[in-house]
Amino acid sequence: MLEPPRDVLTFSSSSSQQVDPYLPASSSYLSSSTKPPIYITLTFATSLDSNLALAPGTQTALSGPQSKSMTHYLRSKHDAILIGVGTAIADDPSLNCRIAGVGGYGGEGLLGQPRPVVLDPKGRWDFSEDNKVFRLAKAGRGKAPLVISTEDIGERKRKALENVGGRNIVLSSDTVSSISAIPWSSILTMLQNEGIKSVMIEGGGAVINNLLHPRNISLVNTVIVTIVPTWLGKGGVLVCPDERVEGDTKLPVGRLEDVKWVPLGEDVVLCGRPMS
Amino acid sequence: MLEPPRDVLTFSSSSSQQVDPYLPASSSYLSSSTKPPIYITLTFATSLDSNLALAPGTQTALSGPQSKSMTHYLRSKHDAILIGVGTAIADDPSLNCRIAGVGGYGGEGLLGQPRPVVLDPKGRWDFSEDNKVFRLAKAGRGKAPLVISTEDIGERKRKALENVGGRNIVLSSDTVSSISAIPWSSILTMLQNEGIKSVMIEGGGAVINNLLHPRNISLVNTVIVTIVPTWLGKGGVLVCPDERVEGDTKLPVGRLEDVKWVPLGEDVVLCGRPMS
Repeated sequence: MLEPPRDVLTFSSSSSQQVDPYLPASSSYLSSSTKPPIYITLTFATSLDSNLALAPGTQTALSGPQSKSMTHYLRSKHDAILIGVGTAIADDPSLNCRIAGVGGYGGEGLLGQPRPVVLDPKGRWDFSEDNKVFRLAKAGRGKAPLVISTEDIGERKRKALENVGGRNIVLSSDTVSSISAIPWSSILTMLQNEGIKSVMIEGGGAVINNLLHPRNISLVNTVIVTIVPTWLGKGGVLVCPDERVEGDTKLPVGRLEDVKWVPLGEDVVLCGRPMS
Repeated sequence: MLEPPRDVLTFSSSSSQQVDPYLPASSSYLSSSTKPPIYITLTFATSLDSNLALAPGTQTALSGPQSKSMTHYLRSKHDAILIGVGTAIADDPSLNCRIAGVGGYGGEGLLGQPRPVVLDPKGRWDFSEDNKVFRLAKAGRGKAPLVISTEDIGERKRKALENVGGRNIVLSSDTVSSISAIPWSSILTMLQNEGIKSVMIEGGGAVINNLLHPRNISLVNTVIVTIVPTWLGKGGVLVCPDERVEGDTKLPVGRLEDVKWVPLGEDVVLCGRPMS
């Protein structure tokens, strides 16, 4: 067993027991589920004014250390992590799991490492092997990414992906036109074909707001939101789904049930399941 | 002692012990305070997407029964409740305290009842003695309101106020032009002249966003936010203060310290103090 890197994280068992009932490994959820065969956990962190970041295209560190460890713990419990292209560009994210004991962090191989999936319909993400997710894949500390697009992303980028063991998956352009009209059924079928049984969807704003809409929320098994006691102010990246109007009446867009609030450092973590 | 009305509320002592350290009666806060002589508690309830209501001008019931009881408990601990005119028009609020044992709810006189204060610069609130706050004042279940405006509100409304023991207080129009430029120092001086030592500011959006702005947040001693596990969607009344830019850099508008998260039914209650 290798010495784990210095940036390894731990998450207390008392905290993990609180979130475990909401995770795909929990048989009580899987067996009672009438959801599609991929378990979807939607997770993100916001300020009190429901912002993910101070401004579009910028990365804002919101979560405290304990909430950050929780995110990595959650990643170890899912086969894949999915993000939108805006987050890939803004954050150059690692999209791996740094919890002590997973592959690359004290464990063997890539055990417990999720597959990174980037939704990039128009091939806007101009990555190279210098991006974090590629460096981690080469170092054996994370899996290589899948990039989902509607057209070929070009030889340079395709080679960069394939050099680390990743792939570009091209969906037909009439199914993926923009993130505001994400064809979840095609994407989930594609992920199933890759052997993925659980996916943690982490952002950004366009992807989250799309999934929270009543037409999509029933796909989601669990929502885990970290709320940080700060206000970012106007002009940020707001989590706020499109309004829901039936007849002449405006209605709440959605609600969680089976709710648990877990204080974690200065933050709180909300776990729940979308009401059907 | 009179029989309390049937809509009386109770709040468990285990829950009240959690919020008590944030209230004006807590000597530890008063003695260490460098704040102005009126203790200000800013309190409101939002959805996960930081909305107070589904749309401007509409009332949206958000809090669960336990959070609602907490609000009434908080009211019993303050000399006054202040709201903006939009909330007065949209909600026709009671602005009294229904906790068992206060005046009108099992207790003598009006002991523990806060003074309602409505900020109505342009006299837009077209109230009469049929409005809830007037009916409660006449029934001995709440104090009569103070209405703060910049011009005389007319004889009909002034008489309605005075009939229940309330008053119109006219501030000079160069100090109160609109809610977006609320002259807090004049208002707080006026409240002090009325013998008010603590005020709970409950909304609505314009008043809250104004107080959360860096130029005003230092007036606030305690913030108590109830968060409800629902999304209301776009077009609601958003709590999101104006952005804060220093030089070319956008910064978070504010943060709470000495934070406590108290799960209460399906909701969570956040208590904290603005960081200076």
